[in-house]
Amino acid sequence: MKFEVSATLVYEALSASTLILNIEPFNSIGQVVLNETFLSAPELKMKSLRSEALTEKRFKLIEITSPGVINIKYTGVVENTVTAIPAAKLFDVAIAKMPVSVLPYLSPSRYCQSDKLYKFAYNKFGNINNAYERVIAIRDWIFNNVEYRAGFTNPQTTGNDTITQQVGVCRDFAHLGIALCRALTIPARYFTGYAYRLQPQDFHACFEVYLGGSWIIIDATKLMPVNGLVKIATGIDATDTALASIFGNLSFISLEVKSQLLEGQFEEVDYQSAAQGYSYS
Amino acid sequence: MKFEVSATLVYEALSASTLILNIEPFNSIGQVVLNETFLSAPELKMKSLRSEALTEKRFKLIEITSPGVINIKYTGVVENTVTAIPAAKLFDVAIAKMPVSVLPYLSPSRYCQSDKLYKFAYNKFGNINNAYERVIAIRDWIFNNVEYRAGFTNPQTTGNDTITQQVGVCRDFAHLGIALCRALTIPARYFTGYAYRLQPQDFHACFEVYLGGSWIIIDATKLMPVNGLVKIATGIDATDTALASIFGNLSFISLEVKSQLLEGQFEEVDYQSAAQGYSYS
Amino acid sequence: MKFEVSATLVYEALSASTLILNIEPFNSIGQVVLNETFLSAPELKMKSLRSEALTEKRFKLIEITSPGVINIKYTGVVENTVTAIPAAKLFDVAIAKMPVSVLPYLSPSRYCQSDKLYKFAYNKFGNINNAYERVIAIRDWIFNNVEYRAGFTNPQTTGNDTITQQVGVCRDFAHLGIALCRALTIPARYFTGYAYRLQPQDFHACFEVYLGGSWIIIDATKLMPVNGLVKIATGIDATDTALASIFGNLSFISLEVKSQLLEGQFEEVDYQSAAQGYSYS
Amino acid sequence: MKFEVSATLVYEALSASTLILNIEPFNSIGQVVLNETFLSAPELKMKSLRSEALTEKRFKLIEITSPGVINIKYTGVVENTVTAIPAAKLFDVAIAKMPVSVLPYLSPSRYCQSDKLYKFAYNKFGNINNAYERVIAIRDWIFNNVEYRAGFTNPQTTGNDTITQQVGVCRDFAHLGIALCRALTIPARYFTGYAYRLQPQDFHACFEVYLGGSWIIIDATKLMPVNGLVKIATGIDATDTALASIFGNLSFISLEVKSQLLEGQFEEVDYQSAAQGYSYS
Repeated sequence: MKFEVSATLVYEALSASTLILNIEPFNSIGQVVLNETFLSAPELKMKSLRSEALTEKRFKLIEITSPGVINIKYTGVVENTVTAIPAAKLFDVAIAKMPVSVLPYLSPSRYCQSDKLYKFAYNKFGNINNAYERVIAIRDWIFNNVEYRAGFTNPQTTGNDTITQQVGVCRDFAHLGIALCRALTIPARYFTGYAYRLQPQDFHACFEVYLGGSWIIIDATKLMPVNGLVKIATGIDATDTALASIFGNLSFISLEVKSQLLEGQFEEVDYQSAAQGYSYS
Repeated sequence: MKFEVSATLVYEALSASTLILNIEPFNSIGQVVLNETFLSAPELKMKSLRSEALTEKRFKLIEITSPGVINIKYTGVVENTVTAIPAAKLFDVAIAKMPVSVLPYLSPSRYCQSDKLYKFAYNKFGNINNAYERVIAIRDWIFNNVEYRAGFTNPQTTGNDTITQQVGVCRDFAHLGIALCRALTIPARYFTGYAYRLQPQDFHACFEVYLGGSWIIIDATKLMPVNGLVKIATGIDATDTALASIFGNLSFISLEVKSQLLEGQFEEVDYQSAAQGYSYS
Repeated sequence: MKFEVSATLVYEALSASTLILNIEPFNSIGQVVLNETFLSAPELKMKSLRSEALTEKRFKLIEITSPGVINIKYTGVVENTVTAIPAAKLFDVAIAKMPVSVLPYLSPSRYCQSDKLYKFAYNKFGNINNAYERVIAIRDWIFNNVEYRAGFTNPQTTGNDTITQQVGVCRDFAHLGIALCRALTIPARYFTGYAYRLQPQDFHACFEVYLGGSWIIIDATKLMPVNGLVKIATGIDATDTALASIFGNLSFISLEVKSQLLEGQFEEVDYQSAAQGYSYS
Repeated sequence: MKFEVSATLVYEALSASTLILNIEPFNSIGQVVLNETFLSAPELKMKSLRSEALTEKRFKLIEITSPGVINIKYTGVVENTVTAIPAAKLFDVAIAKMPVSVLPYLSPSRYCQSDKLYKFAYNKFGNINNAYERVIAIRDWIFNNVEYRAGFTNPQTTGNDTITQQVGVCRDFAHLGIALCRALTIPARYFTGYAYRLQPQDFHACFEVYLGGSWIIIDATKLMPVNGLVKIATGIDATDTALASIFGNLSFISLEVKSQLLEGQFEEVDYQSAAQGYSYS
């Protein structure tokens, strides 16, 4: 499907600063960026950063040389394809057969301290033999036990905190899902994106698990159909996929995010079912 | 200088398992592996893993198909060069001029929660203008305030814990150093290696900071001259540089590590001074 | 029933020190200390501490004036009565009707951070209306989900940690039970005692809840019948009921604990059932 | 000096609830409550709670039987005397000579986890021999290193967090001071009060240490002269001295606190000096 996404950000620079934005949709075989603009007023020096070290991310480094209000607007048109993969094909991949690039997603991270959750994860989900069913059980347990509500967590909240606090936003739902999967030796990574049908419109976070040779998208918030997502980035957790990283004295003023369908009708996949998984390749 | 390093590991496999070892010296322009052997008894299927996703690491994946005692021995001869760089050249690199591959080392991580240390780091080291002097002050503050002693920390101890617990091993010293540097926007990464003159002989951990365009080695334990190190790996923290990652039912029996000078005499650099930094390229 | 309990402690004093022991059985209407001896070799100055501030505790303050090995032996004969109270009488007491002395046991404490568990406790146990059934459900959930195993927790482990780590000793089981009860506004306190039929013989910890006007003993480890306990102390958590508090340079050498039935036969109560609660008055 | 203090609280009850307020000045030899009124509109059933278990606290239990807005106003006139004690008399009290009632204030608590701070406290303050000078050094270190600023901490923040976060309000300053003192075996307790000259007017928290046989008031915020305080309560930490404890569905609407001098002129003590300590007996 074809989506037009946009993000409008306003900052006030109090001194010369550097801003790294990570808001451009990722460009891949499965998700093609057809056209895009990245504008600022006043006009600022921008540099696109890409490297193997960043994996699935596109960073825009913006240099702000003088104080003042900065308006930034990204707009892009993206055509993406979500592949449905039958549950039967979403088997557990043996460590020895995993691509090397997948291994980092088994380690604990800042917000996903899977090393503290082995017994919890095994006690709760260990009796489920099938890997994809385990993931679905994790997703549903989070959905059923954690209240989606803003204002109770902060950027330092970890997925482990969310187990006992049982309240949070999309970021917390994703971190907890990742932590539980990694504790069960299922590679899991953080996913940020634009989200069609998310109300109110905002960036969204969920996670992906590596099963059957594909990265399968999982959204424990169940706020919207997973095929309404436009991928911005994947990473270890919220640390390396931050939408904005600020270096200097820059204060945030406002953000407006939009995602709309450009052509045809939105054909919602059955994202609540466990009969198949969905992958953005 | 030329070092011969070796590691002998013994495990008991209780079932089929997979083991990923990260004990081979890194091979680069500045550190050349002249020859090496990696043996196991019984003979096991081994696979070398290398990819951009692993950055400076060489993983050996070992498949253990049946129960029993496993003996593993790595031996390598390495020639390495440590470059001394005058303090005056170890300037702070602006974000906009950093290679993209350096950026991940500014983020908080599992054991280096720099996001919680901004005020602490600025209050304690913010009055030092020069970046390298800040790093040396951090190194010396850790050395002076944290007792080097085994048995008081565990694999879940973070650098942040070490600020108040003030006791730990090389791993804890390194995590704390990294956390403080990142809190001050100085890229910092974890370094594991063989360590000539470390008594008793063992693997060692310290950290590197990115200053003046080079990664400079810093050892807050001051246990040995930094040019006696043979680099195994660098990474985010202990999560992605683990010497052994076990998947399956494998129990650790013993480890013996050795590092010896092969030719000539060891010329110790003045690693306590702040007049220059040392880099493994 | 009549029990003889004893504790033999050996310390080595490296300098003049003060030791406060909390190992004497509590003396009350329901548990009468018939005779006891508290000896040390060499003979040391001992002072019994009692005050309202200590609530249900008997402290023995021992002054050690010179270095050397200290042998301490407490022996006591205790007759106690455990009252069975039918579940129907174990109703929730309204805050306004609670004795003032019960209120402190509603607050979070060092090892029972109930203030972080409101949603977790309500989500898991909130659908059970009856207060005593809630407590039994908490006890059984801990028993079913937490592995009883030494060596995985330490004195700084909290009940909250135990929710996700799911492994621990009697102390951890008790702290978790207390934290969950307090999160549900059920007063709960820590209980230490001698434990007949505990194998191997050792001090034991469990907890009490205030229901129907009585403190009801609950042991989530289910290691032994609750009427085999001889109460030493009750308190907020392990902080104020420590068996030994050391001030000075005293190193622990050994501990031997015994509890045996003096007369007749042990009549085990049905401590697994939820049909009644048991109270030490 | 004679102060008139008042607190006006407004709540909205959404259902029948119980409220325990701890806002009445403590009545003792050194601080006499001359007259007071405690009113509510609508008129509610109130019960004064006092017991040895509460130590220095006066609780007012208020039963709210029906929904609606509740206005509560306490007004009291208090005459208090602050005794200056020369530093030379503020000696360290040996454990064996401490009143039993003082011992609980040596234990770690929910917000003052002194058991994690032994090395930190000894490394930083251990070289100061005199107990009162240590306390003054702790007070000044907190004052110099922690920024007084609202909005960065929450009710779950501990004194230990404040060591690295270095920002907080009076509550955080007090918790950190208590934690450090207890880590050095100096009994310390939490103090809440009305605060003349505090701008804006509000309740205030600081702490007391037990030295030379007296409880000495210490305020690491240095926001106001310590003899402008009217003591409400002392306790373990913020857990047992909460100004309001809510049981039921009661939502906070507003609070207004006042403290004014009734007669004569305010004679400010030299609260910044270390030449003497000040005690509320």
